[in-house]
Amino acid sequence: MHRYLIKIAFDGTDYHGWQVQPNGITVQEQLQNSMKALYGFSPDVTGCSRTDAGVHAECFFCHFDLEGLIPNEGVIKGLNSVLPDDIRVLECKEVDADFHSRYCAKKKTYLYRIDRRNISDPFSCRFSYRYDGKLNVGDMNYFCSTLCGEHDFEGFSSANRSVQDTVRTVYDCHISENGNYLELFITGNGFLYNMVRIVTGTALEVGKGKIDKNIAEKIFITKDRSIAGATAPAKGLFLKLVEY
Amino acid sequence: MHRYLIKIAFDGTDYHGWQVQPNGITVQEQLQNSMKALYGFSPDVTGCSRTDAGVHAECFFCHFDLEGLIPNEGVIKGLNSVLPDDIRVLECKEVDADFHSRYCAKKKTYLYRIDRRNISDPFSCRFSYRYDGKLNVGDMNYFCSTLCGEHDFEGFSSANRSVQDTVRTVYDCHISENGNYLELFITGNGFLYNMVRIVTGTALEVGKGKIDKNIAEKIFITKDRSIAGATAPAKGLFLKLVEY
Repeated sequence: MHRYLIKIAFDGTDYHGWQVQPNGITVQEQLQNSMKALYGFSPDVTGCSRTDAGVHAECFFCHFDLEGLIPNEGVIKGLNSVLPDDIRVLECKEVDADFHSRYCAKKKTYLYRIDRRNISDPFSCRFSYRYDGKLNVGDMNYFCSTLCGEHDFEGFSSANRSVQDTVRTVYDCHISENGNYLELFITGNGFLYNMVRIVTGTALEVGKGKIDKNIAEKIFITKDRSIAGATAPAKGLFLKLVEY
Repeated sequence: MHRYLIKIAFDGTDYHGWQVQPNGITVQEQLQNSMKALYGFSPDVTGCSRTDAGVHAECFFCHFDLEGLIPNEGVIKGLNSVLPDDIRVLECKEVDADFHSRYCAKKKTYLYRIDRRNISDPFSCRFSYRYDGKLNVGDMNYFCSTLCGEHDFEGFSSANRSVQDTVRTVYDCHISENGNYLELFITGNGFLYNMVRIVTGTALEVGKGKIDKNIAEKIFITKDRSIAGATAPAKGLFLKLVEY
């Protein structure tokens, strides 16, 4: 048995997230269907993260086991020949049988893109959330900096999360201005359900002056989701980097 | 009565071209439906060109008449509030009653994007045609240069065109390398049905060494569509600029 780790990228617009589910097509399902078409059976494909519906990935890892030893280039070409264009296999390598794309991940980096134009661009509107009102980027960056370190992020997650332990370490969180976009980057050892989108929604409210830039400490202590900002739309979010 | 000229941009992926037709939704139809929602009736919206299904526009002009005098900014905001995200109104101005977005256009520039990567990018695959084989760009550029001037382009058009006069003037045609892309630009006083896609398909065959770089003269004389290259896929084509 050989274990393969592949790096994929996908436009999540038309998918109900990563994980197979009854009410819509998912990225995992597309991969498993492609393997069925290519190899005659569907191995279980395990992903590095459970991305929400509509979220994109420039870098997403998943692993699966095959009986045969297939050249890496053959896995890439074969899967890309049957997958839809909005999912691409970028890299493939054989890994040890105990390697796990999710549990072995040490750091993940997400990017949230906010389009600052007053009219959105039809060629990039799938990949950003447009907000052209006034924003205090200095205050947003201050708020981001207060997230760094080990904290209980329960107040920054949605109620229907599946995990018990809500303590995570954020290594970096900052906002950069990049042409027409504000880009929020956040790197951590793991993220709770909807956490990056709630962090972004809170940063936006801080930028508008509607939430105090020191709110993070209060949310860590009270674990009160209701004092954080709204969950920002999925379309602006990218899984950007996964480090092992 | 007031005549308005608007500049729009659209991602043509999900549309059956510009012009209203029975078998699928079109950009013209979306605009007319939006005006119906906004103003209570649908004025005729006349476009500068009949783009094919799947073709995009960074710059497309159309005109329509309304009884009321509406501020330009109000037309832009109103239409963008009801149009889908893949069509955006960028500019609006009132023009003379005899101005016609199609007949008054003096020059149009199209861009065809060829992605040279061996794996396409899921975030831009809607907007380019991927070809990663070897291409002689010098020969392609030579072929492009031979299109310039006034010629009978009948052999570079599809049989089901609606016009009689097939003579057009090409002011410029060249290919630039731009990062991962080869970009074919063509500027002319008008274009026949599928002309830019057939020019691009022929340029690709010239680049592969399968069609002689001096083929254009022969096609102008014989008007023989069959000796030109295949019609390149719609997804790589953009209407880039319209000049009045």
